[in-house]
Amino acid sequence: MASPPPSPSAPPAHCIKEETEAQRGGACPRSQGPACFQASSLPTQPPDGSVAILLYLSRKYEVPDHWYPQDLQARARVDEYLAWQHTALRSSCTRAMWQKQMMFPVFLGEQVPPETLASTLAELDRCLQLLEDKFLKDQDFVAGPHISVADLVAITELMHPVSAGCQVFKSRPKLAAWRQRVEAEVGKDLFQEAHAAVMKVKDLPPADPAIKEKLKPSVQGLLQ
Amino acid sequence: MASPPPSPSAPPAHCIKEETEAQRGGACPRSQGPACFQASSLPTQPPDGSVAILLYLSRKYEVPDHWYPQDLQARARVDEYLAWQHTALRSSCTRAMWQKQMMFPVFLGEQVPPETLASTLAELDRCLQLLEDKFLKDQDFVAGPHISVADLVAITELMHPVSAGCQVFKSRPKLAAWRQRVEAEVGKDLFQEAHAAVMKVKDLPPADPAIKEKLKPSVQGLLQ
Repeated sequence: MASPPPSPSAPPAHCIKEETEAQRGGACPRSQGPACFQASSLPTQPPDGSVAILLYLSRKYEVPDHWYPQDLQARARVDEYLAWQHTALRSSCTRAMWQKQMMFPVFLGEQVPPETLASTLAELDRCLQLLEDKFLKDQDFVAGPHISVADLVAITELMHPVSAGCQVFKSRPKLAAWRQRVEAEVGKDLFQEAHAAVMKVKDLPPADPAIKEKLKPSVQGLLQ
Repeated sequence: MASPPPSPSAPPAHCIKEETEAQRGGACPRSQGPACFQASSLPTQPPDGSVAILLYLSRKYEVPDHWYPQDLQARARVDEYLAWQHTALRSSCTRAMWQKQMMFPVFLGEQVPPETLASTLAELDRCLQLLEDKFLKDQDFVAGPHISVADLVAITELMHPVSAGCQVFKSRPKLAAWRQRVEAEVGKDLFQEAHAAVMKVKDLPPADPAIKEKLKPSVQGLLQ
């Protein structure tokens, strides 16, 4: 299921101590490679805490180096992306999905003001441009020639506005080619499985009134 | 000097490759301990990219373990804080400083609407409560019994609303005691030096019109 909208004052995740072998379905073999990041053990859209969870899992299960490289410069690139995305790409992707699709009809039963949506989509476009120009540049992946956790976090964010009908990749061949590389590295089936829920979000029935009421403050925050 | 307001679409820092021995004034001796994080080599308020810079420096100069502990759980607590603060404490601290002090008279020459400031201060209060309840709990520092980069990032954020006259520590003895511990670990002189510029921000003369114009979109964003 799609993540609820982030709330600035939402409690931190504190999920790490609950992460157990049983919950993950057993330890991840060191040789398992990309499939080590199973869809079932990671959220579709990482909230704040999930970046920490992702890094924790990569260390605990000693995944192949490329996911979070030992090389100082490459690791710094991953860290830089993970820090940047919180207030940039992640924020605009979440807003785009909620404003374009989720606010109506699932939560508020009304359209978002056109100027608000336009501003959000313009901000999303600026963030996509920065992702291309400043992170991807002429590299295959965010941190260089190999896929890393930064690419996983980035693609899960981008699939949210995609699920709401935003043509994120349409006029961006560099980004579209990167998506194909990420999908190939993760594996097509796992990629589809990981995003299956978010891609169905537009087909959700109207929210239960109690849930709607609970999430309303956060949803309202996404209009700003 | 105080950091400019963050812009969601600001380019990532990409400062890491420019970080050189010469800029830092030489390599940091491994045994130097807390003073290894010199005020001159780190920004007062870390923007997005500075979390990556801080982690990069901790690895490059192999600082004592407690700054970014090898222990999986403790490191995950540091990572969790570093991820959470971007859209929570950092955001509300920045808004509080700019709305309370910097918007008037330095930039816009007008007061922030009282209801906007009240909302920002309430949000700051919620974030401070989460810092106490969910991160510090009954520990001495964010990640446990020892100081880490999470505490450095946290204290630099908190000193921004403090510089604008917010009584962040006044009715929060737990937070005040933590601040004293951080100051003692870093060293009183270095602590004061690191925050000297931000503590003088209210005494700045009105901004140069060109700078004011350049920063205006970001400053306006902090009113939302």
